[in-house]
Amino acid sequence: MKLKVYADRISQPSRAVIIFCKANAVDFEEVRINLAKKENQTPEFKEINPMEQVPAIIDGRFKLFESHAILRYIAYSFPGVADHWYPADVFIRAKINSILDWHHLNLRRGSMKFVMNTVLAPAFGRRLNPQSASEAEKLVSSSLSKIESVWLKGDAKFLLGNPHPSIADLSLACEIMQFELLPDEDRERLLQHHPKILQWVKNVKNATNPYFEEVHSVLYKAKPSLLENLGAAGRRTSKL
Amino acid sequence: MKLKVYADRISQPSRAVIIFCKANAVDFEEVRINLAKKENQTPEFKEINPMEQVPAIIDGRFKLFESHAILRYIAYSFPGVADHWYPADVFIRAKINSILDWHHLNLRRGSMKFVMNTVLAPAFGRRLNPQSASEAEKLVSSSLSKIESVWLKGDAKFLLGNPHPSIADLSLACEIMQFELLPDEDRERLLQHHPKILQWVKNVKNATNPYFEEVHSVLYKAKPSLLENLGAAGRRTSKL
Repeated sequence: MKLKVYADRISQPSRAVIIFCKANAVDFEEVRINLAKKENQTPEFKEINPMEQVPAIIDGRFKLFESHAILRYIAYSFPGVADHWYPADVFIRAKINSILDWHHLNLRRGSMKFVMNTVLAPAFGRRLNPQSASEAEKLVSSSLSKIESVWLKGDAKFLLGNPHPSIADLSLACEIMQFELLPDEDRERLLQHHPKILQWVKNVKNATNPYFEEVHSVLYKAKPSLLENLGAAGRRTSKL
Repeated sequence: MKLKVYADRISQPSRAVIIFCKANAVDFEEVRINLAKKENQTPEFKEINPMEQVPAIIDGRFKLFESHAILRYIAYSFPGVADHWYPADVFIRAKINSILDWHHLNLRRGSMKFVMNTVLAPAFGRRLNPQSASEAEKLVSSSLSKIESVWLKGDAKFLLGNPHPSIADLSLACEIMQFELLPDEDRERLLQHHPKILQWVKNVKNATNPYFEEVHSVLYKAKPSLLENLGAAGRRTSKL
């Protein structure tokens, strides 16, 4: 039975897993779980992931959730995956784990909160919270600076100065790509002082194309209607 | 050269790493980094961990931060560590990774924010924020319920129904032990509906004693002065 990947491409960790499978020629079936339609909250999906989040996988009788755990599992278990994604070298692997662990409460937390409270909330039936967005922006900015100064020293092509991308490059780059959903001025403000970040995301894209662009095209398509929604929400808010 | 562990026992991930080393007879030197004195922000410590957080380790010439990455690295690299802590079995290891990844944005985020905004803030020169504490309490409660229903099914002794503890048991149990710093009524409110959690933390304690109790004794010692501080802070706030 083929590996099943339950995902919504609007979710950055979903995209990381899908791109990883495609770039490594893993034979898999993508099952869309539409978050905006709350398909992650159905009894059927809760059987797959009781945490109600995407991505999740089923491989034979084995179920797994959390994107980093899934990326590690696929890297371990599918013989076609090149070593550079999650190197057997104990020291490099430990450094990649360190980046992946750091990610959750730093770049991911900041980015998730900023994008939700700047553009996504109305699509999920929630209100935009400008104060949350402002706090999140600080965390995003400090996270981007840390990535540049700690893991992209000198002319590093990929994190840790590795010559090829790892699962950490893919996870973090997909998070930054989420900014494509933002109004242009917000995206520019976040990224304009981070030329190394921009070059590095381009490197990850080039190393995983055509899949990187193909999987991210959902963002470019979703943006106009999200911004329209946002305009309507803004007008609603201003009437209150 | 001995493994050096830079830690402050008031930090739950620091305790997890110290207990892990002790329980596995790893030969290490503990170097105290006093967070309340901001020793994590000195230029010397930033050379060890540019993210300014504990725990961090130096093993020979190798530096590493993020507690989960450190626990995995020690499990990989020190031959005396029993397999059950981070099993070589691909499926069990993947499930343990899934718990560790989930932890960051759920139990850890909730617990950190709740304890900070209920008791620790004044010791770090910050104000208590009751609204943050209230949001955090919801996240802690839902996280504890999820741990019980997903990973402590039936009469599971350890997470995933494993017969022995893993690094995930230790990391999450140390997080829950942080509630020992709280005023009794807060701790009771958080834990009273979670008998399985209480029994499981006891199991982790029994499996790692005397080290578990020894390393956690810092919390029992710190509590009275923190609560005193808190009283003073409360009086200051009420005068505003």
